[in-house]
Amino acid sequence: MVAGDGRGGERWNTLSSKMIYSGNVFSVHEKTCQAPDGRQGLFSLIKVRDWAVVVPILGRGSQAQFLMVRQYRHGSDNPSLEFPGGIVENDEAPEKAAAREMAEETGYLPGTLLHAGSVYPNPAIQGNRYHVYVALDPYPAVERNLDEHEIVDADLYPAREILNSMGEGELSHALMCTAVFLTEKCLARNGLPALRSL
Amino acid sequence: MVAGDGRGGERWNTLSSKMIYSGNVFSVHEKTCQAPDGRQGLFSLIKVRDWAVVVPILGRGSQAQFLMVRQYRHGSDNPSLEFPGGIVENDEAPEKAAAREMAEETGYLPGTLLHAGSVYPNPAIQGNRYHVYVALDPYPAVERNLDEHEIVDADLYPAREILNSMGEGELSHALMCTAVFLTEKCLARNGLPALRSL
Repeated sequence: MVAGDGRGGERWNTLSSKMIYSGNVFSVHEKTCQAPDGRQGLFSLIKVRDWAVVVPILGRGSQAQFLMVRQYRHGSDNPSLEFPGGIVENDEAPEKAAAREMAEETGYLPGTLLHAGSVYPNPAIQGNRYHVYVALDPYPAVERNLDEHEIVDADLYPAREILNSMGEGELSHALMCTAVFLTEKCLARNGLPALRSL
Repeated sequence: MVAGDGRGGERWNTLSSKMIYSGNVFSVHEKTCQAPDGRQGLFSLIKVRDWAVVVPILGRGSQAQFLMVRQYRHGSDNPSLEFPGGIVENDEAPEKAAAREMAEETGYLPGTLLHAGSVYPNPAIQGNRYHVYVALDPYPAVERNLDEHEIVDADLYPAREILNSMGEGELSHALMCTAVFLTEKCLARNGLPALRSL
């Protein structure tokens, strides 16, 4: 070990917790926790539902396209080009949420839906999970059904161009980079061609 | 266009904003915004400083190692194995923050520090940026200097094993997947061997 005593990952105990704020999308909780060595601290945490996203891939090889959505994002105060996704509802399976969000935002249903992975979007201050799916051969099938405050364009984009630009400009959503990373792993696990070889 | 009228990315105007909560790490603001088509909505947003992370790579080829830190994360209530990083302080350049956090958490200084990219960790509800750097050939040079509530182990891990497991178990921090994704792009831009060929 380079530094530390091997106890860095040990669990802290929660001594007390109270909700400080409750909004439409998330609530804030202040917790007093105690480390294994006895030291105490106050930590502000965000409680929010799980999120699900789906990377829809149409076609193969150099002609492959992503189905993506463009919308204004209130946090960044900027437009954002993303894969379809949203909040997992109460008692909803994450894969159902992923397919539902794609249908609501784009009108497409997945052909084959693969689970690419589930990670923590921000384990430092949030306990929720971020579920990533890959939709192979999605097809237009239903009417869109946007939420009250959603203004969303949906379109097809050459996958190669998106991969080249991912991480810049309108493609600066970190969790979309995560989605591509997990999609590459998922495709490899399933014996499918890598995105980077598109 | 598959769906929408091409105005999905248009900016909403802020009609009013007030701070609802202020904690050690973030504050919460409620904003009333108006869309270009006139509809209004109330949005809860989190204000937090920028974050910086550094992916430290020691050695080359199949012997390459990552310098990583293990710590308990209060949001996920689980241990997490991550690249060194933290909050960018007021008036601090992101690359200084990345190098400082690595030094504080591991005692290593970067040999060469490359900027891999800067993205939004969560543009839906946060406006801050997440800056990713690559440190080539970092070396042990200083005493660690942990914050009051940091209990962190630092160690070297075979890069190939980390890449294989990234996205699972203790390696489930979405923003670390983002860091690897942007690191691959950065290495390619700089004519350096890809991580996946390690």
